[in-house]
Amino acid sequence: MKIKIAQMGLGPIGLATARLAATRSWAEVVAGIDLDPAKAGGDLGVLAGDPALAGRPVFRTLEECWKRRRVDLVLHTAVSRFVDALPALEQCAVRGVSVVSSCEELLFPAWREPRRAASLDRLCRCHGARIVGTGVNPGFVMEVLPLCLTGVCRAVRAIHVQRVVDASTRRGPLQLKIGSGLAPAEFERRFRAGESGHAGLQESLALLAHGLGWELTRVQETGRAVVADRDLQTAHVRVRRGQTCGLHQRAEGRCKGKLRLTLDLKMYLGAPDPHDACQIEGDPPLDLRLEGGVAGDPATVAALVNAAPRPMAAAPGLRLMSELAVPCLA
Amino acid sequence: MKIKIAQMGLGPIGLATARLAATRSWAEVVAGIDLDPAKAGGDLGVLAGDPALAGRPVFRTLEECWKRRRVDLVLHTAVSRFVDALPALEQCAVRGVSVVSSCEELLFPAWREPRRAASLDRLCRCHGARIVGTGVNPGFVMEVLPLCLTGVCRAVRAIHVQRVVDASTRRGPLQLKIGSGLAPAEFERRFRAGESGHAGLQESLALLAHGLGWELTRVQETGRAVVADRDLQTAHVRVRRGQTCGLHQRAEGRCKGKLRLTLDLKMYLGAPDPHDACQIEGDPPLDLRLEGGVAGDPATVAALVNAAPRPMAAAPGLRLMSELAVPCLA
Repeated sequence: MKIKIAQMGLGPIGLATARLAATRSWAEVVAGIDLDPAKAGGDLGVLAGDPALAGRPVFRTLEECWKRRRVDLVLHTAVSRFVDALPALEQCAVRGVSVVSSCEELLFPAWREPRRAASLDRLCRCHGARIVGTGVNPGFVMEVLPLCLTGVCRAVRAIHVQRVVDASTRRGPLQLKIGSGLAPAEFERRFRAGESGHAGLQESLALLAHGLGWELTRVQETGRAVVADRDLQTAHVRVRRGQTCGLHQRAEGRCKGKLRLTLDLKMYLGAPDPHDACQIEGDPPLDLRLEGGVAGDPATVAALVNAAPRPMAAAPGLRLMSELAVPCLA
Repeated sequence: MKIKIAQMGLGPIGLATARLAATRSWAEVVAGIDLDPAKAGGDLGVLAGDPALAGRPVFRTLEECWKRRRVDLVLHTAVSRFVDALPALEQCAVRGVSVVSSCEELLFPAWREPRRAASLDRLCRCHGARIVGTGVNPGFVMEVLPLCLTGVCRAVRAIHVQRVVDASTRRGPLQLKIGSGLAPAEFERRFRAGESGHAGLQESLALLAHGLGWELTRVQETGRAVVADRDLQTAHVRVRRGQTCGLHQRAEGRCKGKLRLTLDLKMYLGAPDPHDACQIEGDPPLDLRLEGGVAGDPATVAALVNAAPRPMAAAPGLRLMSELAVPCLA
């Protein structure tokens, strides 16, 4: 029995997700869904440039899709905020349709929206749907992988994660999201307003703490512009010397005054020595490094598709990646 | 509701496991079990040198224990071979008692014993027991951690894992198991006879292949003596120049002629630069290194105790680590 999948959100990541899902023997991509009137009514194969998806209709909403196609699972790549995803997630939940989503805040929705998360959880349980947020960051590098490491620790005092990404290797929207080309003060204003920066860092912190059974008593997040020391040009943006070329974002979690978790993200154009690293202060201590890091976009698409069979085997509800079986190629 | 635990196997690892389990709020260590007549009838607290375990009786078998103490889970640290563990595992299964075991072959028992594994699986399902094998190696470094990494890969062509252990930091029995002090030819004879060497390397390979959905068409395992280039002395063994001071063991897995998996283990007295590493040839490629490696004995004990709550939440049967929730500190 193949899992019948609808791809919701047909931007570059969504289309790449649909293409990858179409290669899997356990998956059958049956439809696309996108609110954009220029896409709805079209053919997913044409939009994705993939003959394997030809003949799959594109609907505006799951509601419209549901009248014509039965769906087991929605791959959701549309928004970063949980509240923005909620209407679509509810449409899925009430039909018993499970969701694997790249929505950053969905990694740990109870962090910002405990009531709405609890209510969506009830809806899922009531109708037999599973909803989970995942990806590479958030979703893997800063919490699932460190949690997995703690599986061989007798005790953990603190966890420190660093991620350095050369943003010039990433897609255009990401190069803009990190402030490329803005005056540093303008970037920092937008960061404080929640309009710029990496989404989901606090959710990573919250999932990590939750997995360890730690209650965070203080969480601080900072975001600073990284300033270009020379003119820079990528396929997507031009940055002059003195302008923002990316960000240095950091979240810290304390338990009763003690610093227990630090997540440190440098993502800027031309960042040298890209890598992911994690140090666990514990018994035994662990010191992990992923040389070169986890390449963002192909890995995000992979994380979504690989996670797809996982929630189908889990109990209904709003699920966390830490509750599902070890992620792996599927 | 605490998980009522009996510790079966009261060697150094078993006693350390009982001591660690006794520190967990979700666990209640209710008894020890060991066939050794010098231990049975005694007090687990005295044997373990831990007042927190005082008053817990030590029985010879689970059958004897069962007459006096209800047990939910057995932590089993007794033997390396699945067939040697089978009688005790069956005693657990028929009583609906779950097991987390350090038995190396239990990591993937169907590799050597598909019929006996299927029969134990049926017994577990019939009586509501879950049995799983875990540890650091096998159980984490060479398969669970690499599998977890593949969760962010679109495709995987091959996986290569290396583990370098300075055996002089490990317990005495392990220093002997790797051949310390033997003539190299004698070590290699014992390795071929299955009497020396690291147990479970083929099981790691099998679990890795299973997790990836790969069918191995050829598996080769080799074990060579590492020869001391000077006289060596640890707290447990004395090795003269020219004698065996450890091993270089390697397993390779091929699918239709193509080398897809290599597991390479160097474990010898004074091995320089201890570390664990894993390269995934895939999309994206991944290059992981754990500097210093995962310290064997404390981590093995931690892996067992941390895994304990996992199978309790899984469906009954003979389970694999790759099917359970992401391992983490518990």
